[in-house]
Amino acid sequence: MKTLLFSAILMTMFVSLQNVAAESVSKVDKGWWDNPYPSQFDNSQLTKKLDFVSVQGNKLVDESGKQVIFRGVNIADPDKLLREGQWSEKLFKEVKAWGANVVRLPIHPVSWQGHGKDAYFKLIDQAIIWANAQQMYIIIDWHSIGYLPAELFQHSMYDTTMKETRTFWKDIAFRYAGVSTVAVYELFNEPTDQGGRAGKANWLEWKAFNEELIDIIYAHDNKVIPLVAGFDWAYDLRPIQQNPVDRQGIAYTAHPYPQKAKPEVKSKENFFILWDEVWGFAAKDYPIIATELGWVNADGKGAHIPVINDGSYGPLIIEFMQNKNISWVAWVFDPDWSPTMISDWNFTPTQQGAFFKQEMQKHQ
Amino acid sequence: MKTLLFSAILMTMFVSLQNVAAESVSKVDKGWWDNPYPSQFDNSQLTKKLDFVSVQGNKLVDESGKQVIFRGVNIADPDKLLREGQWSEKLFKEVKAWGANVVRLPIHPVSWQGHGKDAYFKLIDQAIIWANAQQMYIIIDWHSIGYLPAELFQHSMYDTTMKETRTFWKDIAFRYAGVSTVAVYELFNEPTDQGGRAGKANWLEWKAFNEELIDIIYAHDNKVIPLVAGFDWAYDLRPIQQNPVDRQGIAYTAHPYPQKAKPEVKSKENFFILWDEVWGFAAKDYPIIATELGWVNADGKGAHIPVINDGSYGPLIIEFMQNKNISWVAWVFDPDWSPTMISDWNFTPTQQGAFFKQEMQKHQ
Amino acid sequence: MKTLLFSAILMTMFVSLQNVAAESVSKVDKGWWDNPYPSQFDNSQLTKKLDFVSVQGNKLVDESGKQVIFRGVNIADPDKLLREGQWSEKLFKEVKAWGANVVRLPIHPVSWQGHGKDAYFKLIDQAIIWANAQQMYIIIDWHSIGYLPAELFQHSMYDTTMKETRTFWKDIAFRYAGVSTVAVYELFNEPTDQGGRAGKANWLEWKAFNEELIDIIYAHDNKVIPLVAGFDWAYDLRPIQQNPVDRQGIAYTAHPYPQKAKPEVKSKENFFILWDEVWGFAAKDYPIIATELGWVNADGKGAHIPVINDGSYGPLIIEFMQNKNISWVAWVFDPDWSPTMISDWNFTPTQQGAFFKQEMQKHQ
Repeated sequence: MKTLLFSAILMTMFVSLQNVAAESVSKVDKGWWDNPYPSQFDNSQLTKKLDFVSVQGNKLVDESGKQVIFRGVNIADPDKLLREGQWSEKLFKEVKAWGANVVRLPIHPVSWQGHGKDAYFKLIDQAIIWANAQQMYIIIDWHSIGYLPAELFQHSMYDTTMKETRTFWKDIAFRYAGVSTVAVYELFNEPTDQGGRAGKANWLEWKAFNEELIDIIYAHDNKVIPLVAGFDWAYDLRPIQQNPVDRQGIAYTAHPYPQKAKPEVKSKENFFILWDEVWGFAAKDYPIIATELGWVNADGKGAHIPVINDGSYGPLIIEFMQNKNISWVAWVFDPDWSPTMISDWNFTPTQQGAFFKQEMQKHQ
Repeated sequence: MKTLLFSAILMTMFVSLQNVAAESVSKVDKGWWDNPYPSQFDNSQLTKKLDFVSVQGNKLVDESGKQVIFRGVNIADPDKLLREGQWSEKLFKEVKAWGANVVRLPIHPVSWQGHGKDAYFKLIDQAIIWANAQQMYIIIDWHSIGYLPAELFQHSMYDTTMKETRTFWKDIAFRYAGVSTVAVYELFNEPTDQGGRAGKANWLEWKAFNEELIDIIYAHDNKVIPLVAGFDWAYDLRPIQQNPVDRQGIAYTAHPYPQKAKPEVKSKENFFILWDEVWGFAAKDYPIIATELGWVNADGKGAHIPVINDGSYGPLIIEFMQNKNISWVAWVFDPDWSPTMISDWNFTPTQQGAFFKQEMQKHQ
Repeated sequence: MKTLLFSAILMTMFVSLQNVAAESVSKVDKGWWDNPYPSQFDNSQLTKKLDFVSVQGNKLVDESGKQVIFRGVNIADPDKLLREGQWSEKLFKEVKAWGANVVRLPIHPVSWQGHGKDAYFKLIDQAIIWANAQQMYIIIDWHSIGYLPAELFQHSMYDTTMKETRTFWKDIAFRYAGVSTVAVYELFNEPTDQGGRAGKANWLEWKAFNEELIDIIYAHDNKVIPLVAGFDWAYDLRPIQQNPVDRQGIAYTAHPYPQKAKPEVKSKENFFILWDEVWGFAAKDYPIIATELGWVNADGKGAHIPVINDGSYGPLIIEFMQNKNISWVAWVFDPDWSPTMISDWNFTPTQQGAFFKQEMQKHQ
């Protein structure tokens, strides 16, 4: 009896080993020289016709020239959602029900590397199909934090290289060329030299690298909108007053979390002055998409600088952005990451979740 | 009975695990600090005395100053041949029987990385020994395609870095210094920015990087010929008219596949004019080695731009090169890769195979 | 009976496999997004109060302004010592008994990479705790040899990149900020282009990279002393006469092995002239720490250029350094690496070991 049990265990192990062996052999049989060239996303998988969105002066417009304002949410990294069993069309339907017209995919270098390019493309493909079915657009975001020219980052999950970043955009731009659902490529989430701890940020160097990425993207696809961030964790756009990124058809982003502006007296007027000075001014000349914003109470889940606020921030920032036709994407439709919009996978809204839901639904 | 079978299986597995353990222990015993320094190729393994080939004006010459013109073939990547059971001296004897005096080894970054440097050196060593026995020379070719300064490539099998490329040539130049059978180092197979999709090709940047590689090679060995390629997949040498690579003793290459020149009227005269304009002109001042050329019929195996031709190309390109003392190396003595010279491992010549065989044999 | 034996073996293997499975599951449960941010060394683990050492003119001084001269030893790479079972407080006590007031840790890129950052930090932490208990200081040395801007190295154990080197110092500087026992960061052990075989050394390029590293370190910690090396395997400081590293609070190093200076007549005077000319002159303006020096007889263990000497070198170099208040750290307190100070793990002194021991003990 015991022997039989052992034999069962043993056979299981033996079969596993055989499979390993078989896989090794097949890898030898089919050599590296047979690996296929990459393929493009098949638009016929999409059920809805979405206009291409493009840049006209300081506006985003659809194919008829009508202004488009994005209001939507960040979901977590698709790889995280998959590992947790939450990667499904249901998520996209819920986001749509909250009133979003855009979903941002924050692709972390660590998950891109670990998941593997080909498998990750399948996740993005699904996101596009699911978003398209809900007539929502997709922003693909290379979700790193640090100063890329020095290749120094805030945490190992953001660790990448200039080579990998160029290659990421080459591969993405090739695969999704001509897919109108994919509206925006956010080149690098949050550039920062961390006050010198991650190198010495230099705007001309950063601008040149962004131009290099934009050229690579446009060589594949000039119907997508490259989105450029400034320093201070994507907050400070002042350098573009003297030295704008020298490419057409682009937009700028800002991540105006509540503690970034620090007026002595916390009045609406003072916040508006500071926001305008550092990033809002750019809305006169360029489309702006604030791809991260949100808050949590000081005693809330994951409270940390610069996202702590009592809730007064919400109406202020929305009014400021509305005045200037600024698009926005709240952070984050996930119960684990902070500041969170939902407190569980039943999609129970948090304080900020309820607020942004209401704001999105106003415009549905 | 069953128990005996299990015990046999079990013992096999157990022994395997023991071997793993033994290997781990030996790795601990002999630490990273005991890894030997690299060693050089031992010339005493060679049976024939081959002259060093060098550059004199626009000619390749032997030690007596007599002009050398290389006519030979590319074989596949040695790693591919090994995995397929075709890596043997027989291959080199057959190539010699076809009339070749040179064999080019296209070393793909993916195979160099996967095979491992030390094991790959053994393959190159064998190629040198086998070629030397047939009195043929070797061209070592770093077989990448893309724009190296941007570290973007046409396919993952060509993926490398500037660091890896410098290190490759440092290691190769050290190992094969003073080995006359190794005549040519082709620094980078086919530079191209793929029309901007792989970065923005800049000749001065590319020229400087080639000079850096040449300096590293010459610091080890100044009796080898560095071979430099132009953009457009090693086709366009026009930038050297204004800005030649500023080093002595080098040669240039071109890969003049049939569909690269596109005259309105496909006459011999028109092809000659176009070829001359873009790369042939350089033969006035430098030795030229066309290290890839060949064709396949439109319905032939692996037909693809730019190698499709009805066969009229063969005599034309040979006449053009003959007029200018240009060396050439046909692509490719392998039944799988295209355009192929042999249709099977019995070495049955294809259309181009028969043609190039005849041309090589004329000069034997 | 046999069955029972097999069952025991089998259960062992099965349990191992279960553990593997459990670990995999826990890796899925706790995702990459839960990896903690790095933490800092906890000073409360230290038992002795050591002054911060800083730079004042051409001197190292303690907190009361009193001159500090380091005299100590290199131990082997902590990873090597651990693998050999020699990593223990006993080693540090022995070094102290020999009279050392400083211990240099030569961290080889290969061991840093193989051991893993977090595990390696634990080794450094132990070194700090053990050194502190003996009131000795620590020099952390990024122990590579080659020309880093070309990313070419003398041996694979020294293989690194500019990115890895920046990241190493960012991580080290963060972890050990405010730890007075860690007195010196030696940025790069021995810069050399190996006569062109490892690229083309350029002082302005190297100086700029050192400044970049110093800025990253100072952004974390400005109470540590960055130590800069010159070319020729950390021997030649002459370029700083025209182009000193443009940062305050730093020191320079030299590795004046006996065969580096080659006077025609080997007199004390002639050695002193040559040493002064190439590196000793710098002691007028900067603190100098000769972080490697030593010798072995021509027939001794591991004899190789440039460390061969009959022993006459010892008193000469010590007198030279003493005259100029130069600190020094002998190479190497290990029975395997050359030139060795101990011939076995009973710490039996070699010729140079006995000499340096006596010199250190003079100043205890």
